[in-house]
Amino acid sequence: MAEPLIFYFDFSSPYGFLAAREIDALAARHGREVVWKAMLLGVAFKANGVQPLLNVPMKGDYSKRDLLREARRQDLDFRLPPDFPFASISAARAFYWLWDRDPEAAKRLALALMERAFVGGQDIAKAPSVLEVAETQGLDKAEVEAALQDPAVKERLRQEVDTAIQRGVFGSPFVFVGEEPFWGYDHLPVVDDWLKTGGW
Amino acid sequence: MAEPLIFYFDFSSPYGFLAAREIDALAARHGREVVWKAMLLGVAFKANGVQPLLNVPMKGDYSKRDLLREARRQDLDFRLPPDFPFASISAARAFYWLWDRDPEAAKRLALALMERAFVGGQDIAKAPSVLEVAETQGLDKAEVEAALQDPAVKERLRQEVDTAIQRGVFGSPFVFVGEEPFWGYDHLPVVDDWLKTGGW
Repeated sequence: MAEPLIFYFDFSSPYGFLAAREIDALAARHGREVVWKAMLLGVAFKANGVQPLLNVPMKGDYSKRDLLREARRQDLDFRLPPDFPFASISAARAFYWLWDRDPEAAKRLALALMERAFVGGQDIAKAPSVLEVAETQGLDKAEVEAALQDPAVKERLRQEVDTAIQRGVFGSPFVFVGEEPFWGYDHLPVVDDWLKTGGW
Repeated sequence: MAEPLIFYFDFSSPYGFLAAREIDALAARHGREVVWKAMLLGVAFKANGVQPLLNVPMKGDYSKRDLLREARRQDLDFRLPPDFPFASISAARAFYWLWDRDPEAAKRLALALMERAFVGGQDIAKAPSVLEVAETQGLDKAEVEAALQDPAVKERLRQEVDTAIQRGVFGSPFVFVGEEPFWGYDHLPVVDDWLKTGGW
């Protein structure tokens, strides 16, 4: 099987959520698998002196409208959690901890967390919220709680974020096909064409 | 005929150029015409505290790569002028002056200017460059030169930029179907779907 795609997302990125719902099926159409990687966009934003999308005047209002419009088209009951943007560090730690044990379960956990945030409109920033979702996924709450404080897990996330920054990941979603970078939910059709044609 | 689309672009926006090459044909497929409007994005950027796209670290590098990739796909010999981003005020004034006389000629002038910038890789910021292109379009150089200094033309552009800001235009390209806003070259397929279905 050809090299897997790399899919970067931030748990607090609604466009990342839209992409997470599609990326595995997209890749599968071309016989590819997907490695998911949680990113902390705040780190990239700080490095680049940019604001979170929805905090930018005009662009923020537009993006909210665009998200609701896209969700409506997909019959997705989308909403933003009251606290937005939110910290995604606990969710990202839980994700990597689980990924190293069971990647498919980690994808399910990631989707469940983002659904809680962007369909449920509820918090996933606080550790107890993450643990609650982990439990609904059949995970041992105490074990995940310990993982969130595990220095090795913290270090794992730091390394992934460093690598992402080095690779130029400045937004979510962000997909690599080999070394070829594709940014944005809007660019998934381009990823699809790239995989279909082998690139140009 | 149904209400025309409104197409905002900035002469210094490469994604605006890509969209300008397609928007009339897209609209025509749905029996629509297009009113083109030149925008000065610098005014919106200043209001919103954002940087021109290619000046943003990481995102700028990615966007250059993405532009070249998209151009390659379209067999378009794309390049950036050495001075980039550049001032587009003279081009925009010439455009509105001509629009009020002959909209189709104004579209041809706009495309010729952007081709000089993004295919020729040459200046269109300075008034003499704009006049040179105007002349190749069969326009009277002295007349266009006078227009660039005409207070009424200057005021016309100011009003258009004000209106654009009020309508929330923060990027290029930016398309309105009625009151519905669509930002970005990547969003042209969404405009297409919206026109096809009547919206959702």
